[in-house]
Amino acid sequence: MEPLRGPLVAINGDRLLQRIDELAQIGAIPDTNGSSRLAFTDADREGRDLVVTWMRDLGLHVTIDTVGNVIASTSENGAADAVMAGSHIDTVGTGGRYDGNLGVLAGLEVIEATFAAGIDLKRPLAVAFFSNEAGSRFPPDMMGSLAYVGGMSVEEVLNVEGADGSRVGDELDRIGYRGTAPCPGVTPHAFLELHIEQGPVLENESLDIGVVTGAQGQMTMDVTLQGVAGHAGTVPMRLRADALACASEIISQCRSILLKKEDGVMTVGTMDVEPNSRSTIPSKVVFGMDIRNPHSESLEQLKNQFTQAISSISQKHHCTNNVEIRSFKPPTEFDDSCIEVIESAAKKLQYGYKRMPSGAFHDACMVNEIIPTGMIFTPCLNGVSHHPSEYASQEQLFKGANTLLHSLSELCRK
Amino acid sequence: MEPLRGPLVAINGDRLLQRIDELAQIGAIPDTNGSSRLAFTDADREGRDLVVTWMRDLGLHVTIDTVGNVIASTSENGAADAVMAGSHIDTVGTGGRYDGNLGVLAGLEVIEATFAAGIDLKRPLAVAFFSNEAGSRFPPDMMGSLAYVGGMSVEEVLNVEGADGSRVGDELDRIGYRGTAPCPGVTPHAFLELHIEQGPVLENESLDIGVVTGAQGQMTMDVTLQGVAGHAGTVPMRLRADALACASEIISQCRSILLKKEDGVMTVGTMDVEPNSRSTIPSKVVFGMDIRNPHSESLEQLKNQFTQAISSISQKHHCTNNVEIRSFKPPTEFDDSCIEVIESAAKKLQYGYKRMPSGAFHDACMVNEIIPTGMIFTPCLNGVSHHPSEYASQEQLFKGANTLLHSLSELCRK
Repeated sequence: MEPLRGPLVAINGDRLLQRIDELAQIGAIPDTNGSSRLAFTDADREGRDLVVTWMRDLGLHVTIDTVGNVIASTSENGAADAVMAGSHIDTVGTGGRYDGNLGVLAGLEVIEATFAAGIDLKRPLAVAFFSNEAGSRFPPDMMGSLAYVGGMSVEEVLNVEGADGSRVGDELDRIGYRGTAPCPGVTPHAFLELHIEQGPVLENESLDIGVVTGAQGQMTMDVTLQGVAGHAGTVPMRLRADALACASEIISQCRSILLKKEDGVMTVGTMDVEPNSRSTIPSKVVFGMDIRNPHSESLEQLKNQFTQAISSISQKHHCTNNVEIRSFKPPTEFDDSCIEVIESAAKKLQYGYKRMPSGAFHDACMVNEIIPTGMIFTPCLNGVSHHPSEYASQEQLFKGANTLLHSLSELCRK
Repeated sequence: MEPLRGPLVAINGDRLLQRIDELAQIGAIPDTNGSSRLAFTDADREGRDLVVTWMRDLGLHVTIDTVGNVIASTSENGAADAVMAGSHIDTVGTGGRYDGNLGVLAGLEVIEATFAAGIDLKRPLAVAFFSNEAGSRFPPDMMGSLAYVGGMSVEEVLNVEGADGSRVGDELDRIGYRGTAPCPGVTPHAFLELHIEQGPVLENESLDIGVVTGAQGQMTMDVTLQGVAGHAGTVPMRLRADALACASEIISQCRSILLKKEDGVMTVGTMDVEPNSRSTIPSKVVFGMDIRNPHSESLEQLKNQFTQAISSISQKHHCTNNVEIRSFKPPTEFDDSCIEVIESAAKKLQYGYKRMPSGAFHDACMVNEIIPTGMIFTPCLNGVSHHPSEYASQEQLFKGANTLLHSLSELCRK
């Protein structure tokens, strides 16, 4: 039989949509299209059971590892030497139906489509769903894939406590998903994750496919500015130490610095003002800053420029400042050959595509640490995700899944 | 007998301090020098009773009007044709011992000092304390003096409800201070209020006396900016509608506009950010702006310039904006002859002084509507007021009271 070529083989769109919908019914949020399947809850178990049933119905070999990651392979050797697709099926508290789920169910569909076409690929195909990607109930996010690559020990994972006092290990036992397969396990030949973009870039440029080159690095910091409270009427401007005036100038200035760069983003998402009284000069402001950039050196440079701006503007406003770095994640760079394979597939299928970094982190960013990895983005409405209104059109879902199909097939040949 | 001259007559500082301290014991806040005598509470009644006792002990004719304003006069005709001093003796929830109290007790001291010196002034002297200047329990502030000049009807005053559901009229009855004297009542010849500055200007310039020319006008507004929430990592800068980035630029820009003016102040004291989440672009910001300026035309101009800046910066940030003017109080200009009399007194007494506007509003600003009025400021530590740590040195208090003495005496001659 001929190896897979061009548009001769395609995924079954109806079957993919049907599965997405069926999975979304578990933990469905009434009167919305969204779902709530927080990690290791009963809803998560039901979702897992459904997907594992589909995997077994296809005759795949299913393994569950000691942190609950599930891998289904066409080979009885599991993921070893396989070309693997995957993502996650847990959600945030009020999530959508595409985030994560698409990558898993499209992986499953690719396997079924190749079975249906009777194609003999040169490597096994596998599809995985990793535990607790959302991290909403048990931080950190991407827990399962992090453990899968050895970035967090099984013991650490099992001992994580949620806000409700429950323990990951106990919850995994409770839902029956503490498996026996080793974690970290065998490493597949390559890994691809199809995911909605969670941003507006593709939609805005009317493109079908994002060929993801990596994920932006992220630095988060808390900035505390201490000024002096005073009467809004009686203290002349030159004698003030107004923490909010100071914060405003810092935010504007940092934004100007950022906008001079070609890429990357910055966000001040939180701000707390004391005493937050109409007729009192603010004595204290704390704000949280999130800086992301695909290049490590840019992130480092921004940190220095921002810190300098915070310091000099604080001085000008007679405020003291404290900058606390809360987290630092270096940028991810996906595997060149995976990127090229995805790009070739999108081109061959005549889809509109561009290379782009991911603004958010995904399981693929973890897996990339030890396995050649790539990611495919498909547009979503208004860039919205992590919300029941999350939406991707049938056409875009099919194009995403077909790109995954052709990319996985090509990787099997390598 | 010779008319009053130069430093021959002076207030009795010890007596003044003694009374300030005795009044401060009522509603004293433990372990501080401050007091809590919210309007029409039991503490307010006790404070009133004490001051009225002192007034009666001096043989003054005391009248209480229908909103609880108390006037003590050397004449049985009350305030008619008198030269009157006064202020208030209620406090904010956790207040200091000088705000308001000083103006009343210094007025009383001036009368006692002139009695002691056996001076025959050509007009009666009077001293008043107005109801509910602080407005903390029953808005608006300066309620008693506002009613005294007819700016609020007695019926309106009596029907004001506090946050605790109580009514001013009922509380006045309860504490026994709903009097029978008409309100508005007879108008004195002139009115002077001695008050701590509540700002840092005099202290900063090592001056003893502020000759207050008037009070800044005040405009307060709420600015609402509506943007679009989004993922802090995935939405490129150019596609954002970040309400907090927008607010920051507006605040900085308005501050720049304000600083180009010679006088006046602006404060953004409150800010609320939605959803106030670290990894989400803020979709909504509401902030409260307070603008004060001694000139009506400047206030109007600032309003226009600020509104324009808000509009153009919002457009640039793809945010919509709504500006709601919450309050507008025009500037107060005190009576020229009162200003000159106070200035001459400070000069004659060889105190360091300057003419200055008041940043805050006072009873004098209300009284000024129908009676020739002036105000004397005395420095207070770090400009702090409305707080138990409020402090003015003995020396400064004496200088303030002596300036009041000589100003009142001079006004009696006119």
